Amino acid sequence: MKEFELIRQIQQETSAVYPNGFEDGVKLGIGDDAAVLEVPVGHYLVAATDTLNSGTHFPVNTSPFDIGYKCLAVNLSDLAAMGAIPRWALLSLSLPEAAPEWVHLFSEGFNTLAKPHNVRLVGGDTTSGPLSISLTALGIIEPGRQLMRSGANPGDLVVVSGTIGGAAHALEMLQAGKPVAEQHLLDRPQPRVNLGQGLAGHASACIDISDGLLADLGHILRASACGARIELEKLPQTDTLAVLEDETRWDYQLSGGDDYELLFTLPHQYRDELETWRQQLEIQLSVIGEIESDEGIRCVHKDGSYYQPHGIGFEHFRRTS
Amino acid sequence: MKEFELIRQIQQETSAVYPNGFEDGVKLGIGDDAAVLEVPVGHYLVAATDTLNSGTHFPVNTSPFDIGYKCLAVNLSDLAAMGAIPRWALLSLSLPEAAPEWVHLFSEGFNTLAKPHNVRLVGGDTTSGPLSISLTALGIIEPGRQLMRSGANPGDLVVVSGTIGGAAHALEMLQAGKPVAEQHLLDRPQPRVNLGQGLAGHASACIDISDGLLADLGHILRASACGARIELEKLPQTDTLAVLEDETRWDYQLSGGDDYELLFTLPHQYRDELETWRQQLEIQLSVIGEIESDEGIRCVHKDGSYYQPHGIGFEHFRRTS
Repeated sequence: MKEFELIRQIQQETSAVYPNGFEDGVKLGIGDDAAVLEVPVGHYLVAATDTLNSGTHFPVNTSPFDIGYKCLAVNLSDLAAMGAIPRWALLSLSLPEAAPEWVHLFSEGFNTLAKPHNVRLVGGDTTSGPLSISLTALGIIEPGRQLMRSGANPGDLVVVSGTIGGAAHALEMLQAGKPVAEQHLLDRPQPRVNLGQGLAGHASACIDISDGLLADLGHILRASACGARIELEKLPQTDTLAVLEDETRWDYQLSGGDDYELLFTLPHQYRDELETWRQQLEIQLSVIGEIESDEGIRCVHKDGSYYQPHGIGFEHFRRTS
Repeated sequence: MKEFELIRQIQQETSAVYPNGFEDGVKLGIGDDAAVLEVPVGHYLVAATDTLNSGTHFPVNTSPFDIGYKCLAVNLSDLAAMGAIPRWALLSLSLPEAAPEWVHLFSEGFNTLAKPHNVRLVGGDTTSGPLSISLTALGIIEPGRQLMRSGANPGDLVVVSGTIGGAAHALEMLQAGKPVAEQHLLDRPQPRVNLGQGLAGHASACIDISDGLLADLGHILRASACGARIELEKLPQTDTLAVLEDETRWDYQLSGGDDYELLFTLPHQYRDELETWRQQLEIQLSVIGEIESDEGIRCVHKDGSYYQPHGIGFEHFRRTS
């Protein structure tokens, strides 16, 4: 199989899921030197790129389906954290060898997310090399609605969607060769696209949790020049984490990466919106603390005493730092 | 050094080259979950992505400067082949280890091209893994001006910019451990951005030569449902190729990849424009043949007899096909 056939296969497998006449703004898609796209009048373009390397971002024995799913999920999560509407994607796929069956399964996983979110694959590149996937996701947003990291203010609620720590726990069990009850949390994270769009215009700051709660909250706090108090007993937990010792569980929740939940700060005036979003989007939303003017993150027990976490969050190149 | 510091270093090193107040449409650049960009009214977005893997797309001992240069060059070449105006780039960088000096040199090479073409790095991702660079280049174009592969018609001139075959020859010398006279042709290809913009509205089809003349001309011919006659003695040659045996030289020129010159078809009515472009852009433009209605590519000697090339062009996964 040649490179051109591989591109054609991905194009066919990913375009087959859309109805004819789908209004997607694609003036020219896969098959030329570049894609030509129409950003609707009155909108900004939102662009994110994320790479997944085998063995670093997913275990080497992860299924092609899950890799196809996850490479889109992590990028849609970035668009969600901006409040953007996803539109298009460009894919760079490095494969050790050309394998049509692998590409077929990969495309199926990709489509599982692309279809409900109306994402069109419009360009890409397949190369020979160690398994690695770089995806660029493009979306749109109305000016002024983008959710940044820099808008948090003292008094704002700190809110997180879904549960956290589950992906890191699943990965650790997997690496230890133990049974994994909630592997879907690691392999098939749900990008919170609809929530992000709902938050636009309400949340004062937003980020998706890829490196862990403390690390990603830290990004918001640095950009916003403030601090936060986090209440340990309010951290949302998965069924598996619920049975662990408190400190073990907290460390997963505070420092575990790969959850791709949204972490946002909400002015008190929008507090009632939380219940609306919970019901409309059928999503768990937990108020886990509050923004404070003093810099730094204070993790507190129910009795008000402080807890010192054992880690901060996932960073690449940790071993060389 | 942590991942966040690496991103910050690249951001600083690549943004330092721009004057304050440069009107680039960047509403939000590096440092949030995604970039927010403004496509000017009356323009389409043009998006291309290309990956360079160490050992496949450049020799393993290529300098970080040249890698930084080339990852942008190959993508700007794709935008050039569409006739687009480059604006922004997103970079995914996989590195075996965090190396500030490597990143510094890489950024210098990147800037060497980014600055003259007004390209802003607006987002990216650095990960730990085998050396690999994925770049997404974003540009703009007025509707209807995009140069596609599908517009060639019988009678159109086939034209190529610069010289071809030199990059493939340099790579072969390098791999054989022989002295390389024109290594810049391999390491520092000139993306023909200004030429591409000039061609928009004139050329009937255009592509950049990354896989070799025959392979890339083949893409135009398939998309345009026609064929071509190529005159061997008109193929532009480098000084190094000029001294080789005819057949050896032709094979480099017909099948060698990595030149990143523009190959385009031009209706006869615009023939006089060629001289204007040559002078204004100080660029070599060679009419190497003509589009014909019969499918296939016919390479002909001066006496009209046919030549059968020994290869077609570079394709990844060639060994497994």
